[in-house]
Amino acid sequence: MSQRHRSKNIDNTGFGPNSNVEGGRLVNPDGSNNLRKRGIPIWDRISIYHTLLRMKRSHFMMAILLFYTATNVIFAGIYFAIGVEHLSGIDQSKSVVDEVLAAFFFSSQTLTTVGYGHVAPTGLLTNIVASTESLTGILAFAVVTGLIYGRFSRPRAFLRFSSNMVIAPYKDGKGLMIRLASYKNNHLTEVEAQLTIAMHVNEQGKMATRFYPLPLEIAKINSLALSWTLVHHINEESPLYQFNKEELINNRMEVLVYIKAFDDHFSNTVQQRTSFTHRDLIYGAKFLPMFERSVDGTSTVLELDKINAYELVSIKEISPASI
Amino acid sequence: MSQRHRSKNIDNTGFGPNSNVEGGRLVNPDGSNNLRKRGIPIWDRISIYHTLLRMKRSHFMMAILLFYTATNVIFAGIYFAIGVEHLSGIDQSKSVVDEVLAAFFFSSQTLTTVGYGHVAPTGLLTNIVASTESLTGILAFAVVTGLIYGRFSRPRAFLRFSSNMVIAPYKDGKGLMIRLASYKNNHLTEVEAQLTIAMHVNEQGKMATRFYPLPLEIAKINSLALSWTLVHHINEESPLYQFNKEELINNRMEVLVYIKAFDDHFSNTVQQRTSFTHRDLIYGAKFLPMFERSVDGTSTVLELDKINAYELVSIKEISPASI
Amino acid sequence: MSQRHRSKNIDNTGFGPNSNVEGGRLVNPDGSNNLRKRGIPIWDRISIYHTLLRMKRSHFMMAILLFYTATNVIFAGIYFAIGVEHLSGIDQSKSVVDEVLAAFFFSSQTLTTVGYGHVAPTGLLTNIVASTESLTGILAFAVVTGLIYGRFSRPRAFLRFSSNMVIAPYKDGKGLMIRLASYKNNHLTEVEAQLTIAMHVNEQGKMATRFYPLPLEIAKINSLALSWTLVHHINEESPLYQFNKEELINNRMEVLVYIKAFDDHFSNTVQQRTSFTHRDLIYGAKFLPMFERSVDGTSTVLELDKINAYELVSIKEISPASI
Amino acid sequence: MSQRHRSKNIDNTGFGPNSNVEGGRLVNPDGSNNLRKRGIPIWDRISIYHTLLRMKRSHFMMAILLFYTATNVIFAGIYFAIGVEHLSGIDQSKSVVDEVLAAFFFSSQTLTTVGYGHVAPTGLLTNIVASTESLTGILAFAVVTGLIYGRFSRPRAFLRFSSNMVIAPYKDGKGLMIRLASYKNNHLTEVEAQLTIAMHVNEQGKMATRFYPLPLEIAKINSLALSWTLVHHINEESPLYQFNKEELINNRMEVLVYIKAFDDHFSNTVQQRTSFTHRDLIYGAKFLPMFERSVDGTSTVLELDKINAYELVSIKEISPASI
Repeated sequence: MSQRHRSKNIDNTGFGPNSNVEGGRLVNPDGSNNLRKRGIPIWDRISIYHTLLRMKRSHFMMAILLFYTATNVIFAGIYFAIGVEHLSGIDQSKSVVDEVLAAFFFSSQTLTTVGYGHVAPTGLLTNIVASTESLTGILAFAVVTGLIYGRFSRPRAFLRFSSNMVIAPYKDGKGLMIRLASYKNNHLTEVEAQLTIAMHVNEQGKMATRFYPLPLEIAKINSLALSWTLVHHINEESPLYQFNKEELINNRMEVLVYIKAFDDHFSNTVQQRTSFTHRDLIYGAKFLPMFERSVDGTSTVLELDKINAYELVSIKEISPASI
Repeated sequence: MSQRHRSKNIDNTGFGPNSNVEGGRLVNPDGSNNLRKRGIPIWDRISIYHTLLRMKRSHFMMAILLFYTATNVIFAGIYFAIGVEHLSGIDQSKSVVDEVLAAFFFSSQTLTTVGYGHVAPTGLLTNIVASTESLTGILAFAVVTGLIYGRFSRPRAFLRFSSNMVIAPYKDGKGLMIRLASYKNNHLTEVEAQLTIAMHVNEQGKMATRFYPLPLEIAKINSLALSWTLVHHINEESPLYQFNKEELINNRMEVLVYIKAFDDHFSNTVQQRTSFTHRDLIYGAKFLPMFERSVDGTSTVLELDKINAYELVSIKEISPASI
Repeated sequence: MSQRHRSKNIDNTGFGPNSNVEGGRLVNPDGSNNLRKRGIPIWDRISIYHTLLRMKRSHFMMAILLFYTATNVIFAGIYFAIGVEHLSGIDQSKSVVDEVLAAFFFSSQTLTTVGYGHVAPTGLLTNIVASTESLTGILAFAVVTGLIYGRFSRPRAFLRFSSNMVIAPYKDGKGLMIRLASYKNNHLTEVEAQLTIAMHVNEQGKMATRFYPLPLEIAKINSLALSWTLVHHINEESPLYQFNKEELINNRMEVLVYIKAFDDHFSNTVQQRTSFTHRDLIYGAKFLPMFERSVDGTSTVLELDKINAYELVSIKEISPASI
Repeated sequence: MSQRHRSKNIDNTGFGPNSNVEGGRLVNPDGSNNLRKRGIPIWDRISIYHTLLRMKRSHFMMAILLFYTATNVIFAGIYFAIGVEHLSGIDQSKSVVDEVLAAFFFSSQTLTTVGYGHVAPTGLLTNIVASTESLTGILAFAVVTGLIYGRFSRPRAFLRFSSNMVIAPYKDGKGLMIRLASYKNNHLTEVEAQLTIAMHVNEQGKMATRFYPLPLEIAKINSLALSWTLVHHINEESPLYQFNKEELINNRMEVLVYIKAFDDHFSNTVQQRTSFTHRDLIYGAKFLPMFERSVDGTSTVLELDKINAYELVSIKEISPASI
């Protein structure tokens, strides 16, 4: 057991050590914490702006359409309540439905400031409402401009990770490996990687979560052109040295991955997090190459669909855990 | 007394050491300095943009509404002064009030560029004013778009601190503790904390403000998922070691807190400052846990309303000050 | 040969060591990697926003004009399909071509929200389409505003490099030199340079790419006011020490340049990359001065057209490679 | 003389050492380099965006007004050339001047997209031009929105420096002092200062510019609340130790100041540069306090108009230079 404590667990992960308090995995595959907050109202807990920024594009478009329609419905209702006789140009011999529709379209012409003018406000109240609506339209548009720019310009790393982490032969032993590549036409420089392993261990009869840093063979690269395989050598210094395959799974190992880089698209620091659990572990496999020389020989081709391509291999066990 | 000077006071805090010059607390709870500036005109001293950025949302909306109304009133006045007969489509058999209102609504239609056209400028002067007003509208709108985006995208840490700082049992002595948590759905990484204590002490009959750094047991965490309790161990190296409860209060201790982190919402460095005075100190208390496993066991729940939850405990005094 | 391995090759460049996999040069003169990606759909691989950001100005203007025309054509088609009798104010005694044109111009008046109103929508369908088009216009404009601001505010280093790298006399030996200058009215501070050389060498009968850092005499300057000549001294520690001119060319040497600085225009970190291949090497040349005192003697003049000005000189060979 | 070379001059300043090449002062008081660039066309040398960003507010407003008027004049000319009979609603019985004015105001209504519609385009050509103009208006507005936001959000340090640098008594010798304070309601943290002195010295009959760093007693402060006096102690290690007042002036000393900080308004790194020449030096003076306790005793008042307040004092010369 003293062997097992050679690697000191760390308590600066921001997670708690108390295993029977925390539930499930710590970090979700998309990098968010598996965590809910409560005790204060939702509007204090949620940043609406960032929720709209991170929303899927289709949902965002839907939200704008919904807002546009709802605002028009509300203002159309007000114009109708005041009376459509205060909208010059509307044929009042028509039905109520036609009047409501006319109010709706007048509203949309005001909200977007297109203002054809074949329908125009005449009375005091209608003029006040129309004046308010055109201001609303301008402000809403300012918000939308901000949101669209925010969505575009939000710095992101655009990294794709292998679906699995593998334990592969490495040097004269074995290593834990995770592969990643940037999949967009951006370019990352000064890329740093940090791996932390969480183990749920039984200590003196109590379950506790222990965290250990996993040192990497190369923890920083100057430029991420091709793919990058993160390699943690499982040698005597490694916190994984003492565990065999079954123990890793029984202790519900979870590897937290944190990547930080400078992106030339955004000229900004970007980061991406993810996590691999014991279910993502393939014990005895190695990644296959994912780039090759182009047919004409003048450039290199990175094959992104092969990021998780691996073949099974046997591991030479040398650690005491396997004896 | 020599004991008391073991911790060297620091003079790189940006505050002056001269206690009878400075007044009241140094830093306000919201992190701003308790400081006024004068000697140059207010428009040089104030950044209007940032004032509008930091304004409460309701005040900001009010400011926009006020600006909109005031601008329309001014332009309506000009149109009226030139003569509403130069606005085609206005019924001139009406009263002066109606003419003013018509000028006002024409102004609002021009400022927002909705321009229905049932009222339109005809004379040279009126055309020039209308042309200027529509440009004004477009520029004002550009400013508002910038302000709204600026308000949205202003990087903030969204940290909530415990209302009190406590002196709690720690290791075989005691420690000064402050608790914080991020209360929004943002995620902070590489979080650093820095505590500085200010003491107003009597030195050779003169009051002086002395600053000491308070080393933390953990001063940097990789990720702020749950809450974080900042712990300063009051051991022999601590500048607080020599003071008992009464002295801390008499010397008007003030703890300056500075947090710096990288935020994934903004992909930017964020920071937050606050300060605790001796009035916020609870001597002999410890914070209660504020997170628990969710009912279904798959995630952790952080209870933000418990951030200041503590229970009173007795402190085992071992420092010479209490002998 | 042992001599030749004194400089340890590095494998944190983000490029692979496998020479018969990689093709052509590694980095293009504009700093992009000579690399293609495939295996995932193009819309996942390309960031449209950044493509539009990096596009030449003339192409960007063309793209906007194209989008404007295409959108108007589409909406004009819809209005025509519904029937131009639902656009009040259009003279229906005219030809089909005139009707289509009228629909096109009505569309453009709606898309830009100018909405004169001499042509206005009347039927239900036409009103719905017009309402949708004005929203489209507003959103498209929001996107364009974001793109234009993004293009303006994209932090760039605005550095110009000499077209050639030269091997010049330096101290009592020789040095590899590259010259650069900032060519805009921006100002760079804390400028760092990093040179890495790639050599395609034959190792045990197999071609491999080896990378070595090239230490610089001065690798960081406080402020880039004038030009800066990067100097790598080819002394005994240099990875180039063992190679003569022919070997450098045969091994297809490629020097990767990475500059990082803080820019006061953008108040942001900027970076620029480029690469020089053996074809850009001039063996035995030195750069000529490119700045002089202004005629009135009160300032310095930097002559940017002389950035590649050099004169041929003979090199005193002292390295064993030339023996 | 060997004494004089104890402080090693540095050559990583980005300025050249060649004194008869460089002219006048190196850095202007506003922090820009006293430098002109030529050899490439002005549109390559100038960033229009940043020029517009740094322009004085009044000049910027003027530039927008000019652009607005010029664009309207151009389009009015085109409409007039095509023939105002293609603008429905214009009274053609009027004079040419009136027709031109009508075309001008129609242009402005199109450019701002206000589009009243009492004047509207009818012919094909006029419609095409109007369609183009409204697009121009929208794009120009996008540019202006970007510029205004860029002007607002440009991170600046808002530091005010003392007009003079003084040599004041310090410890048992003397020190070079410069005072600065932030004059806006922003807050700077982690403020770093760097002083470099340039001396134009005669070396073996040739004038050369030598640069030396001037170490500061405190070079970094946590927070800039009050004023900050930069102090360089002129002790035996100082490059100024060997020079008396006359030599400092004869060698045309110039002190380059570089401040870097993190600003909470912008959540960004800000920087400011300035320079003091021998004409700004007051030999034998000390700065007077510039802050005091507020009348009600609850806060501190910083008096920005006293930033250069000093009183003359005598200096005790101990350096060999004065012997």
